[in-house]
Amino acid sequence: MTTWRLVLEYDGTPYGGWQRQPDVLTVQEVLEEALGRLFGGERFPVIASGRTDAGVHALAQVVSFRAEASRSPDQVQRGLNALLPPEVGCLAASVAEPDFHAIGDARGKHYRYVLRSGSTRSPLRRLRSWTTGFPLDVAAMREALSALPGTHDFSSFRASGCMAPSPERILWSVTVTPHEDELHVDFHGRSFLRHMVRNVVGSLVEVGRGKRDPQWLGEVLAGRDRRLAGPTAPPQGLFLVSVDYDREAGGL
Amino acid sequence: MTTWRLVLEYDGTPYGGWQRQPDVLTVQEVLEEALGRLFGGERFPVIASGRTDAGVHALAQVVSFRAEASRSPDQVQRGLNALLPPEVGCLAASVAEPDFHAIGDARGKHYRYVLRSGSTRSPLRRLRSWTTGFPLDVAAMREALSALPGTHDFSSFRASGCMAPSPERILWSVTVTPHEDELHVDFHGRSFLRHMVRNVVGSLVEVGRGKRDPQWLGEVLAGRDRRLAGPTAPPQGLFLVSVDYDREAGGL
Repeated sequence: MTTWRLVLEYDGTPYGGWQRQPDVLTVQEVLEEALGRLFGGERFPVIASGRTDAGVHALAQVVSFRAEASRSPDQVQRGLNALLPPEVGCLAASVAEPDFHAIGDARGKHYRYVLRSGSTRSPLRRLRSWTTGFPLDVAAMREALSALPGTHDFSSFRASGCMAPSPERILWSVTVTPHEDELHVDFHGRSFLRHMVRNVVGSLVEVGRGKRDPQWLGEVLAGRDRRLAGPTAPPQGLFLVSVDYDREAGGL
Repeated sequence: MTTWRLVLEYDGTPYGGWQRQPDVLTVQEVLEEALGRLFGGERFPVIASGRTDAGVHALAQVVSFRAEASRSPDQVQRGLNALLPPEVGCLAASVAEPDFHAIGDARGKHYRYVLRSGSTRSPLRRLRSWTTGFPLDVAAMREALSALPGTHDFSSFRASGCMAPSPERILWSVTVTPHEDELHVDFHGRSFLRHMVRNVVGSLVEVGRGKRDPQWLGEVLAGRDRRLAGPTAPPQGLFLVSVDYDREAGGL
């Protein structure tokens, strides 16, 4: 048995998210089908560093799986890129340490949310950003975000269906950076609750547009109640940028 | 009668290009339909600075038309953005000088072609770039392009169906600039023949991948024969970036 590590980029638009589910096509399903064809009919349950929601994109999702058959890393990468649909691509494939596990070994994640000020929608970026409809005050947003880094109970930003045993999470940093006519909100943390990034961004925009004061975001966090927070930001502005591991698999 | 000037952004993916034609949806058609609804049932023949091919994008296409009914520029922009499909947006609307004409008054255009080296395809940029499949030698490409600026007979890079009376065009500059993992090929010129940018890029990639020497591009130009040049680059990497006018319409 060989343990493999893959790095995937995907356009989340046409998928019902990462995780397999009935009646909707998911990234996990198309990957497992491609692996089945590549390695010859075996079943290939794959493990990703984390689930992404429907419509959310990945620049470098990390996946692990085990296979009996022998293939070179180059054969795996090229084979997957030939077999996967155009919306999913394999950026890298490598043989990992035998006990490598894409979830268990993950030490941190970087998510980026792409916001646009104002109401003029961008046709070319309509599926890669959220045009909020309001001018956004970056200084107020930065002040609001200063309450978030650290180890906190993030219940106020947790989706109702979240299955995590604990609402506590470690957030290392959150920054807002203007980039041409976009604002990039970058989250670096140990791990994230379901919808946590999109819920923080939804509330952050309430501050950015002046509907709430900057200190409100910290009050929402302290309240530990989802009903205190703003709406959930739409999925198409969210990107899983990278996943960090203590020990890097060979070749990556 | 009021003469209007619009600036449009569009994702060319789902359209058969700018110009109206039977049996395929075009950007011109969806714009004229939206204007008909906005201004109330009149016919609104619109004029764009130039045609874009099927699959080619525009960051700032300029369009002119005339209308009897009175509307404010803000009403026109908001109304169009409500009526147009998500792939087409109005970035600006303004009242122009009475004789403003989007083709006749254009003084220059900027096109950008987005190339990617190597064979690893990018799912998120598959409809916004061309992944060439080869490592590309930027220095060789720059040397090749040095032959092109100036006033030349561009017959070698002209599509067979091009209706322009003369194959002569004025090209001010062509540059190649690395941008993250992309190469941006920027063309600034007075005007362009049909497929001229895509044909130059197709030949340029032959040089970049080492199949041809840098001086070959100048030889192709001098030969004035389309059969001498390389293949046509695919449309999805091409963007109409901007159109220059001597006199700017009010409000833009």
